[in-house]
Amino acid sequence: QKVRRKANQSKPPPTPKTLNPSSGHSPMAAVRVILPHPHLPIPSWRPQLKPSSSYPRRAVAAPASLSPSPLTASLQLGDVIEAQQFDRQVLNEIFEVAREMEAVERGSHGFRSRVLEGYLMATLFYEPSTRTRLSFEAAMRRLGGEVLTTENAREFSSAAKGETLEDTIRTVEGYSDIIVLRHFESGAARRAAATAEIPVINAGDGPGQHPTQALLDVYTIKREIGRLDGIKLGLVGDLANGRTVRSLAYLIAKYQNIKIYFVSPDVVKMKDDIKEYLTSQGVEWEESSDLLDVASRCDVIYQTRIQKERFGERIDHYEAARGKYIVDKKVLGVLPKHAVIMHPLPRLDE
Amino acid sequence: QKVRRKANQSKPPPTPKTLNPSSGHSPMAAVRVILPHPHLPIPSWRPQLKPSSSYPRRAVAAPASLSPSPLTASLQLGDVIEAQQFDRQVLNEIFEVAREMEAVERGSHGFRSRVLEGYLMATLFYEPSTRTRLSFEAAMRRLGGEVLTTENAREFSSAAKGETLEDTIRTVEGYSDIIVLRHFESGAARRAAATAEIPVINAGDGPGQHPTQALLDVYTIKREIGRLDGIKLGLVGDLANGRTVRSLAYLIAKYQNIKIYFVSPDVVKMKDDIKEYLTSQGVEWEESSDLLDVASRCDVIYQTRIQKERFGERIDHYEAARGKYIVDKKVLGVLPKHAVIMHPLPRLDE
Amino acid sequence: QKVRRKANQSKPPPTPKTLNPSSGHSPMAAVRVILPHPHLPIPSWRPQLKPSSSYPRRAVAAPASLSPSPLTASLQLGDVIEAQQFDRQVLNEIFEVAREMEAVERGSHGFRSRVLEGYLMATLFYEPSTRTRLSFEAAMRRLGGEVLTTENAREFSSAAKGETLEDTIRTVEGYSDIIVLRHFESGAARRAAATAEIPVINAGDGPGQHPTQALLDVYTIKREIGRLDGIKLGLVGDLANGRTVRSLAYLIAKYQNIKIYFVSPDVVKMKDDIKEYLTSQGVEWEESSDLLDVASRCDVIYQTRIQKERFGERIDHYEAARGKYIVDKKVLGVLPKHAVIMHPLPRLDE
Repeated sequence: QKVRRKANQSKPPPTPKTLNPSSGHSPMAAVRVILPHPHLPIPSWRPQLKPSSSYPRRAVAAPASLSPSPLTASLQLGDVIEAQQFDRQVLNEIFEVAREMEAVERGSHGFRSRVLEGYLMATLFYEPSTRTRLSFEAAMRRLGGEVLTTENAREFSSAAKGETLEDTIRTVEGYSDIIVLRHFESGAARRAAATAEIPVINAGDGPGQHPTQALLDVYTIKREIGRLDGIKLGLVGDLANGRTVRSLAYLIAKYQNIKIYFVSPDVVKMKDDIKEYLTSQGVEWEESSDLLDVASRCDVIYQTRIQKERFGERIDHYEAARGKYIVDKKVLGVLPKHAVIMHPLPRLDE
Repeated sequence: QKVRRKANQSKPPPTPKTLNPSSGHSPMAAVRVILPHPHLPIPSWRPQLKPSSSYPRRAVAAPASLSPSPLTASLQLGDVIEAQQFDRQVLNEIFEVAREMEAVERGSHGFRSRVLEGYLMATLFYEPSTRTRLSFEAAMRRLGGEVLTTENAREFSSAAKGETLEDTIRTVEGYSDIIVLRHFESGAARRAAATAEIPVINAGDGPGQHPTQALLDVYTIKREIGRLDGIKLGLVGDLANGRTVRSLAYLIAKYQNIKIYFVSPDVVKMKDDIKEYLTSQGVEWEESSDLLDVASRCDVIYQTRIQKERFGERIDHYEAARGKYIVDKKVLGVLPKHAVIMHPLPRLDE
Repeated sequence: QKVRRKANQSKPPPTPKTLNPSSGHSPMAAVRVILPHPHLPIPSWRPQLKPSSSYPRRAVAAPASLSPSPLTASLQLGDVIEAQQFDRQVLNEIFEVAREMEAVERGSHGFRSRVLEGYLMATLFYEPSTRTRLSFEAAMRRLGGEVLTTENAREFSSAAKGETLEDTIRTVEGYSDIIVLRHFESGAARRAAATAEIPVINAGDGPGQHPTQALLDVYTIKREIGRLDGIKLGLVGDLANGRTVRSLAYLIAKYQNIKIYFVSPDVVKMKDDIKEYLTSQGVEWEESSDLLDVASRCDVIYQTRIQKERFGERIDHYEAARGKYIVDKKVLGVLPKHAVIMHPLPRLDE
């Protein structure tokens, strides 16, 4: 269900052919994508979560743990901490479930699925994010599950009184079957997963990672372009602070013959850890300052917002970085016909 | 279900005969109104919301769109943006459903209705309002539906990062079947409805309108007084900033032989657009500064709070306006016996 | 269900034998307690809440009102305002239900109980508390009920516009079947219960009481030590501002041959009202500044956090009080083997 949900989270951005040239302000009119699948019956797949107290202690970044089912014999639920934890086999199974879940979502308006009936998910958000939080909660509710929600745990909880994340996690896992954590510190999800005996899903940890967004992004690329091996991908914008581009780079590196172009202002360049990981995985990458040239070569342009809130006091750096690389009509003009532009949102003027 | 819910939102205010003259502080003891209807079986009525992707594009301020059902053959669900979108025929049908829903609500304690099972409502509140938000959410839950909630979307969402309302709406409609929007800007609901392909309900847009409150108010008048044609209505208090009086004026204008008295401090007089609309609809109105005189002529006194938060820095204006027109024992003394006093809450010392 | 829920709220703290001496930072590793009970079938017990409008007016601090059922013939649901409202007979019945509910909770992962189906609980939190709020909401959801939630009613509601608590309660009771109230003022729960015609549960009212936490604490003592009569209890830390210790003292006083030791810095000593109550109930108590001596005599050490937020400007007092009495290895060394250490959380360095 994770992936089905994420297919909603940030709607797949429009392909160039959906652009409305008459809307002057933004050339990227967000268009609702009509899914091609007919309504299918509710699947028999249902996660086999055990009572938390009988969970075996799992390694933190273990591959998504897996439960037998007619549909996905090897797919179980476990922690989702970082994009690199998945291998191709698990990704394929997730995408299969995702495709099935698209149909469930289509058919869910007015009908309540029971796939997750009786399960209780806690969304623990230390950093507010309506888009991400509602995406998880909608998925849970569409599938018959229940939700405990915190909109701003940082300000409104024991964290404000000095409680450690670990103590909070131990309490919340007593109430729920799975925890979705958004936190302002890189590594928080890993710490939470090390503490919890129930699964933890990382919904973004500071400038760290955002693996479920990356799962969605890779799934969207596969659906829009038709394949993942051999993709040419341009990552544009804030590559230093954008956790979605970091997770996407880790995930796409699982595929063959990938080429990645980094296009970003100097102050927010992609960090070395990602570059070294890509090199170690045999992924070709290069940095470029010529967005038009990159656009003409890519299957996917993945554009991100320059995140003002991560610049702190350095407003001068923010102003310098903002608006340097913008997808405008010139960029659209050189894009290959089959290419798509993606954006994890929110977008400003990029 | 909209009206049933609103019948809860602000409890019908007490008629004069329920007053407790010994409670010195406020002469308007809020009294729980016992509904006269016996418990009825759950109705067969159930909205026929289609999957959002197959919705036809609807005109923004179209009359509440309509679906066939045994109960209300012409009533469908659509955007609810402003009070004037309704005509008498639609209002009558809404009131019929409301009456039936009162019985459902009575019988719902311990029994879960399934009228809205499988539907997911997102409450997107950019301006906090516990009363209004909980009223919608309680209605949805009483009728078997599910809720995605945001308590303070302005501060805790992408809006704080500069995202447009339109982008947010496009995301949220991907998660839900209907959006209830409270916003701080007049016209926001109209913009949201123009963007969304699922229904949008305006739960108050700045100093603009609050149409569901007006539906409730008109329904309450009908239930308490027994008719709507020929009503004499005194609107008292902050008529410049009060969106509920604006929506109520628009809605009551649909009926015959209405007479409206405006009683307000000079700085918060009813605006010209409403006056012109009433004149164009053949509704008699006059301004008065004599609350006692008005009270002696009215079927309904509709009292509102002077809204400090809409005065901004002009505390002097607020102090001048506050407490000028107060419903006290003298006012109660001149009210006709059958008359009722209504207040959309919250109330201070008025 | 109240007690079952609270058994989750603050996990029973570890007994000394679960300590991990190698974790230098805190000697109190919070350990998940495995409940000994096998999975039991869902109980037939189901509260007989009547429609709110037909509730008889109840005395404010009446003992938890009671409804006939096969399991607990005399247990009904009513207001829960303060610990002293319960008598031993009612407590025994609550603990019986609690024990049964532990089994329901164990079995609830993936199965939805219907004990509270069709009931709607409003959590009205004027003071944020994620732990307490989620504990009530999780309990309600595990038992099949629905929830209306406010994370920060003080800031985000009509209270900010000057509405009285009574008016807010009258509105919210129109939407729900039971209200869980957390408030920043002592006595707020009593005022709410005097206003509401539906049950009100006090989830903490300023420095007043926290009776459901005390129910949990007493239940935990009974489960861990095996009895309640004859218990020797050390209350350590902030006894002036800690509402949980106040409620616990009131509740444990219902039992025979209780001995209580107060160990606290001078500025946050236990207040006289509690001491006088204990004396009037024949409970032995003494104040001590020797934690080691007290620890060697007790069955239960109940440690609380020095609450910085209740000191206001007096940071010097806070610094003096903080860290004076800490449960460290020396304390653990003198504890009787069967003794347990409890903490209502959050904990800092105590």
